[in-house]
Amino acid sequence: MAQALAGFRPDRRTPAEPVPLAAALHRVPAAPVTAPHALPGFARSTVDGYAVRAADTYGVSDGLPGYLQVTGAVLMGPTGPSVTVGPGAAVSMPTGGVLPPGADAVVMIEYTQQVMPGTIEVVRPVAPGEGVVRADEDAAPGAELVPAGRALRAQDLAMLAAAGVTAVAVHARPRVTIFSTGDEVVPPEAATLRPGQVRDATAVALAAMVAEAGGEPVPGGIVPDDAEALEAALRAALPASDLIVISAGSSVGARDETAGVVRRLGTIWCHGIAVKPGKPTLLAECDGVPLIGLPGHPRSALVVFRLLGAPLVRQVGGCTVAPPEPSARARLARDLASAAGRLDVVQVTVADGVATPVFGLSALLSVITAADGYVIIPDEATGLDAGTEVDVTLYR
Amino acid sequence: MAQALAGFRPDRRTPAEPVPLAAALHRVPAAPVTAPHALPGFARSTVDGYAVRAADTYGVSDGLPGYLQVTGAVLMGPTGPSVTVGPGAAVSMPTGGVLPPGADAVVMIEYTQQVMPGTIEVVRPVAPGEGVVRADEDAAPGAELVPAGRALRAQDLAMLAAAGVTAVAVHARPRVTIFSTGDEVVPPEAATLRPGQVRDATAVALAAMVAEAGGEPVPGGIVPDDAEALEAALRAALPASDLIVISAGSSVGARDETAGVVRRLGTIWCHGIAVKPGKPTLLAECDGVPLIGLPGHPRSALVVFRLLGAPLVRQVGGCTVAPPEPSARARLARDLASAAGRLDVVQVTVADGVATPVFGLSALLSVITAADGYVIIPDEATGLDAGTEVDVTLYR
Repeated sequence: MAQALAGFRPDRRTPAEPVPLAAALHRVPAAPVTAPHALPGFARSTVDGYAVRAADTYGVSDGLPGYLQVTGAVLMGPTGPSVTVGPGAAVSMPTGGVLPPGADAVVMIEYTQQVMPGTIEVVRPVAPGEGVVRADEDAAPGAELVPAGRALRAQDLAMLAAAGVTAVAVHARPRVTIFSTGDEVVPPEAATLRPGQVRDATAVALAAMVAEAGGEPVPGGIVPDDAEALEAALRAALPASDLIVISAGSSVGARDETAGVVRRLGTIWCHGIAVKPGKPTLLAECDGVPLIGLPGHPRSALVVFRLLGAPLVRQVGGCTVAPPEPSARARLARDLASAAGRLDVVQVTVADGVATPVFGLSALLSVITAADGYVIIPDEATGLDAGTEVDVTLYR
Repeated sequence: MAQALAGFRPDRRTPAEPVPLAAALHRVPAAPVTAPHALPGFARSTVDGYAVRAADTYGVSDGLPGYLQVTGAVLMGPTGPSVTVGPGAAVSMPTGGVLPPGADAVVMIEYTQQVMPGTIEVVRPVAPGEGVVRADEDAAPGAELVPAGRALRAQDLAMLAAAGVTAVAVHARPRVTIFSTGDEVVPPEAATLRPGQVRDATAVALAAMVAEAGGEPVPGGIVPDDAEALEAALRAALPASDLIVISAGSSVGARDETAGVVRRLGTIWCHGIAVKPGKPTLLAECDGVPLIGLPGHPRSALVVFRLLGAPLVRQVGGCTVAPPEPSARARLARDLASAAGRLDVVQVTVADGVATPVFGLSALLSVITAADGYVIIPDEATGLDAGTEVDVTLYR
């Protein structure tokens, strides 16, 4: 499995497009964004107090206060300070106010006292720069504000806004066309089912996972078990897709048919991976568009798409730093068997630090809806003993 | 801090609204959704093979195969099986096919061999139910498919689609009106700044965090440091808000002014919390609308909103199960000091299992944009030693 992903590295990347900051959360910058000017751009007070020349406070203490003349006040707002701080002077400052010329520090109001109108006593010395944010302390001009390739977080948007960057060039969302195949598959809207019919459970869940991975799901609809119909559908979808996903029919025949069609359109990277559930997975590339053929069972399809498909969507979308996923450490409630050389994905519930496997046929969706997350038993392991501490990747 | 949140529990909840499945990811069901009928609705084969009467295979083995007459074939698709499986008979089955009447198990094709046209030998016995999914094995009629109060995950959508549920009653997204205050604050679009001006960095980041928490951000704009203007803006916003957020001016005067206005409109729950950064936080309720006053420094505002605001958005939006957050265990690179009785939120980078604190004035946004996540030093602790294993909550 790891090899399948490691080896399958399509070159496709979506182009850059500008988006306004308000729409940029979790989008992936196509290039680093740098500061157009210093931030905050002027020296500011970090406390309520008095702007002073630090040297005027050297040696003062509770027992030996210094005395300074209050020569003005800085107010918040769109006008800079109109006063200059000379020797022996102090100018009152709000937090965030612009440091007036001549001052190099701000004494906190707690260490001052007005002894008579126009005069304060200072009982604590300040060093130059104390109580002050430098003009370029948040960012020097040209400093990198956000890197390329990592999805933007809330605080990144704040930093960009602070710098006056109101639009970002991000990778376009990969368009992921999702096909379901199978004569037995009917749309979820089907009110009643005839024996043998199943509603398409996979497509809507895949669309959700595509969106979570930063892609734009494009509904491809349900294609019957007919090689020509599938080929026509794929050919029509290729020009408008950055990635194609097919949830194949669940029978061996249907799977082979999908592989046959894909082989005519491009190159199959692998057909069959050592993952349970998920063995009949197909990875291919057609006209530069990566294609994933998923197992027919909805649960297997979701497991494989989470492991292989979502990273591929992110990769095509220019994401080079995988976002962290929720996880929990827990102890296994029981032994888990696994064949060496096969990666097993085991659905579990988690409570009080204990991970309890949810077992059931791969045809059952209820196994994954009952689960809080999953445990991976790697290729090389032949199972895990009850009580083993495992990492559970949690669903959200 | 914990007390502030534990005690502040506004009753407000958004009403239910129907949404189609395709728009239901991460939405919060207002009531449990139950299965309208059994799922899958008919007994299905889980393997490629032959539908049989299990009793006909008892005692068979490689050395002593049983022989069965192939009396038909079930195909995938919208028509049910047209054959019945009598004693000594076998009907060929694809995975997912409808179990024909008379059969109670499916033998995998691997354990059969066609010995002459119309006759197979079976070398492994099957028990009743083997190779078969029961008609109600995924869900019995009336079984709960998804609970109320937990945000819908991709697999939940799959289960609802399988059951033919194409719309869900979910809590409406809480409308969160976001105000910024301060005469010095200008919109991010301002190309150049006069000394003392700062661009509104907080509002766009708060909007992003509101959306992440399932809310709908409503831009309230920038309000000058003027009690009457703020009161008018709040009064106008209340009827169309489920929650109001004010990022206050950073000076003591501006904060007090906000509190004064809020006191005239409703009830202040607390003003000032033992959190660093975040002390001047205000929690209130006005006309049944919860209100949060955030510290003026953008970084402090983001820290407090993540801790207090986002859970409140989820709560108003009917979410009773907090979604899991990404986290990592790591060892502290250095000692962290903290005052007892105060919760500290320390920004950290994480690499190779080591969490390195990012220090800097609370006026600096770069401290939080440089961080991968944060460590919480709880109220009761007086600091953490270097080497301590800590839980880092990771940003995404």
